[in-house]
Amino acid sequence: MSFPERLWRATAERGTPAMVGLDPRPDHFPEPFRSRAEGGGPAAVAATVDYHRALLDVVAAKVAVVKPQAAFFERLGPAGFGALADAVEQARARGLMVVMDAKRGDIGSTSEAYAETFLAGRFFPAADALTINPYLGEDACRPFLAAARRHDAGLFVLVKTSNPGAGRFQDHGEPPLADQVAGMVREWGEEAVGPDGWSPIGAVVGATRPDELAHFRRLMPRAPLLLPGFGFQGGTAEGLEAAFDAQGRGAIVNASRSILWAHEREDLAHLPRWEDRVAAALDEMIAALAPLAGGRRRA
Amino acid sequence: MSFPERLWRATAERGTPAMVGLDPRPDHFPEPFRSRAEGGGPAAVAATVDYHRALLDVVAAKVAVVKPQAAFFERLGPAGFGALADAVEQARARGLMVVMDAKRGDIGSTSEAYAETFLAGRFFPAADALTINPYLGEDACRPFLAAARRHDAGLFVLVKTSNPGAGRFQDHGEPPLADQVAGMVREWGEEAVGPDGWSPIGAVVGATRPDELAHFRRLMPRAPLLLPGFGFQGGTAEGLEAAFDAQGRGAIVNASRSILWAHEREDLAHLPRWEDRVAAALDEMIAALAPLAGGRRRA
Repeated sequence: MSFPERLWRATAERGTPAMVGLDPRPDHFPEPFRSRAEGGGPAAVAATVDYHRALLDVVAAKVAVVKPQAAFFERLGPAGFGALADAVEQARARGLMVVMDAKRGDIGSTSEAYAETFLAGRFFPAADALTINPYLGEDACRPFLAAARRHDAGLFVLVKTSNPGAGRFQDHGEPPLADQVAGMVREWGEEAVGPDGWSPIGAVVGATRPDELAHFRRLMPRAPLLLPGFGFQGGTAEGLEAAFDAQGRGAIVNASRSILWAHEREDLAHLPRWEDRVAAALDEMIAALAPLAGGRRRA
Repeated sequence: MSFPERLWRATAERGTPAMVGLDPRPDHFPEPFRSRAEGGGPAAVAATVDYHRALLDVVAAKVAVVKPQAAFFERLGPAGFGALADAVEQARARGLMVVMDAKRGDIGSTSEAYAETFLAGRFFPAADALTINPYLGEDACRPFLAAARRHDAGLFVLVKTSNPGAGRFQDHGEPPLADQVAGMVREWGEEAVGPDGWSPIGAVVGATRPDELAHFRRLMPRAPLLLPGFGFQGGTAEGLEAAFDAQGRGAIVNASRSILWAHEREDLAHLPRWEDRVAAALDEMIAALAPLAGGRRRA
């Protein structure tokens, strides 16, 4: 089954396009993981592994997709990279799809090495999709496209990111660079559009205005969109409609800190267990996104 | 001592701006490492570790800088990331400077996590410098700048890459995007220029023509340049003059496959040991680059 087919089936089954980012910051772990991680080293890695296993139990009951952020695992060194592998494996064991947020990009055989790392499932458990950076050009992206085809995986190409200064280079030129990249995403996707009309070549679109999101949807009508910025980054479900079709397909919406740090929220302090606070934050997000889910929610 | 001070001192001591890229492809390892790596898994990782230790003995006798390519290590999974850590540690133990070629780029705290991974020396041995991708904008690069300052490290920002299709996005707009990025590199560097006139914020410039290299040197007069593409990528020492000052400072020139695969060269087959073939290829490169070295060679 193609990546978008698997993705839309999974989000339909869960009835939500919500995705949870896994950005382990040990000083924000709930207890006992935070104390266990103090001092770093092997204890921090073990706490990271155990925390994610517990977190994934909560997350897998609510949403279809997780997005591990490679940086926060790598920061713990080689063993941290092992904790990332464990998180991918454990997520997949719980039926979750995995979008590896590594934002890789290089040339030729080096791009191929990155693609194989995360998509081939050889020395590292395979993710369902990978985020990539297009700055190096089309030929530099081609090995990622080839690997995605080989492994029936997806890609999310950075088109417009969600940081305040994203426009510095992405809006450069006329038409803006991001539109040029979107055009390439569309072209690359056309080679691989499935019978359901969706391409495995998606895009990261951190639109800050509804008209901007509609603009990118027009430029990439068949691309699954990864929408960052729900929650702490200031986004809301409002204005995301343009990314979705009537069946609730078209995009996945990420939240990281607003979910992972829910145990720190005073208004959820009446819930004694951190798992229940995370579940409550997930319920809020899912409810906020419900108008986009296309009425496909099973439960 | 600042990163450029350390860099120019090291290249002066060796008398060459040559740098060797470490891109482990086990099917191109010399024997016995190639056979040992067959079948992958822990044996491939152990062969990768041992190969680099032997390679670094040869390399450290000739040049001042190595550039490990993170992708080829990551491809071997968490243990491969461990092999990368070992290569960094072993390189530094042999007095080599290390430019980590990871081409990372993300936003805010995620950029900070990548920067800390490779520059802080906490859970991973610290590199002297890191390559970064600017597509996400200035605010996304700031955490890398801050980390470089904290750890007295350098950065090499991708400005113009050496692949054939680099211009697809890097030449977009008027002025071209790469010029805009070069302008930012200059601006970022001005905050940190040392008493010797050099900035720790460098740039990757895969110029394909001498006038193009001169153009980027004018845009970034104080930035150390990382010049890829010597050797297999078609570059030669000719035309690189614009990157260097009269003292041989200004750039480091990378070769990867032309050095690492020297043992496969028929014209070097008279040298029985692979180490001697690598040394011969290094000598060729150093001789080709000698006109750029500013007559500072000690030996």
